[in-house]
Amino acid sequence: MSRVYHPAPYLLLTDELKRLPGIGPRSAERIALWLLQSHDANPTRLANAIQEASQCLRTCKLCGFFTTEDLCRICNAPERRVHPICVVETASDIIAIERAGVFSGRYHALGGKFSPLDGVGPEQLRIASLLARVKSEHPKELIFALSADVEGEATTHYLARLFSEQGVLVSRVAHGLPVGGGLEYADAGTLSYAISGRSKISLK
Amino acid sequence: MSRVYHPAPYLLLTDELKRLPGIGPRSAERIALWLLQSHDANPTRLANAIQEASQCLRTCKLCGFFTTEDLCRICNAPERRVHPICVVETASDIIAIERAGVFSGRYHALGGKFSPLDGVGPEQLRIASLLARVKSEHPKELIFALSADVEGEATTHYLARLFSEQGVLVSRVAHGLPVGGGLEYADAGTLSYAISGRSKISLK
Repeated sequence: MSRVYHPAPYLLLTDELKRLPGIGPRSAERIALWLLQSHDANPTRLANAIQEASQCLRTCKLCGFFTTEDLCRICNAPERRVHPICVVETASDIIAIERAGVFSGRYHALGGKFSPLDGVGPEQLRIASLLARVKSEHPKELIFALSADVEGEATTHYLARLFSEQGVLVSRVAHGLPVGGGLEYADAGTLSYAISGRSKISLK
Repeated sequence: MSRVYHPAPYLLLTDELKRLPGIGPRSAERIALWLLQSHDANPTRLANAIQEASQCLRTCKLCGFFTTEDLCRICNAPERRVHPICVVETASDIIAIERAGVFSGRYHALGGKFSPLDGVGPEQLRIASLLARVKSEHPKELIFALSADVEGEATTHYLARLFSEQGVLVSRVAHGLPVGGGLEYADAGTLSYAISGRSKISLK
């Protein structure tokens, strides 16, 4: 691809766009040309939105979700106070569950999962603040929704033991076949969970 | 999709990202989370690149390509002076031909093609400046690379007549089957060009 004759700001823009996840060289070029030529484009508004989000957003002191204040909108919402706490790895996981709109309690993002090779153990995760929440908020239940890989399983089991000793009901989300996905597309791990977690069909 | 609990700067960022060509709601969310959470991300540098490109880039006074100076890098390159001028619709077309690296002459972007419904006629296109270039630069040849639709054809024929009256050799790029594309994927217009533009096979 010959780009020696392209002006420097254009090259810089396409190079930065190419770094975004899921954006290849062609998409980067298409977006850059749209930003520079389309009447609908508003490059200044996009640049400001990126700048403002990266500067104003921090993590909620209680749960770890994105917020512009000390507490996020979920922790501040009175209607979500009485429900269980769902323990996840990151703020992205909160966005994924909120997108589905199937959970009306609150969250606690640990900031990751155990990973001995990267030096991530109990001290590196937001476990102390979860203990403090359990003591002050007395949730009826902690629902663990960590990943189903080895590190996620280890974290779930460690925390489930820790919090059941505190007298809290601990549970975990179900793993199994996705809705709408056939058996032929499922990996071995998913199939193993689907079979071992089978439920009796009630015929009455 | 429940987003009532998302902080305003996050919503603003995903809304702006969703407006980009080829970016849907899921991709916008993925890019926003990457910008906010990844160690590799540099949101300020991206915002500055967008801002700088949209503010510093203008169109070359001679050919219409992107530039930060009066003349673009192609018009300024001495090694590209002696070759024919390729007439295209927009600066994007120049980028497409440069990407292939198969043309070593210079360009002239008209700024569009005839479109009576949108009020675009000869006066709205950069034809006067092309006439001036022909008079001052005496190119050996004008190669027309406008689109093959009705408006592009009308523009090509109008300009071919105009410039052949000026004594310039006028030509057009070939239309036909794309390299690597089979007959079954070609539309009727492309097949029509491919058959009418057939060339004799020389057997010697």
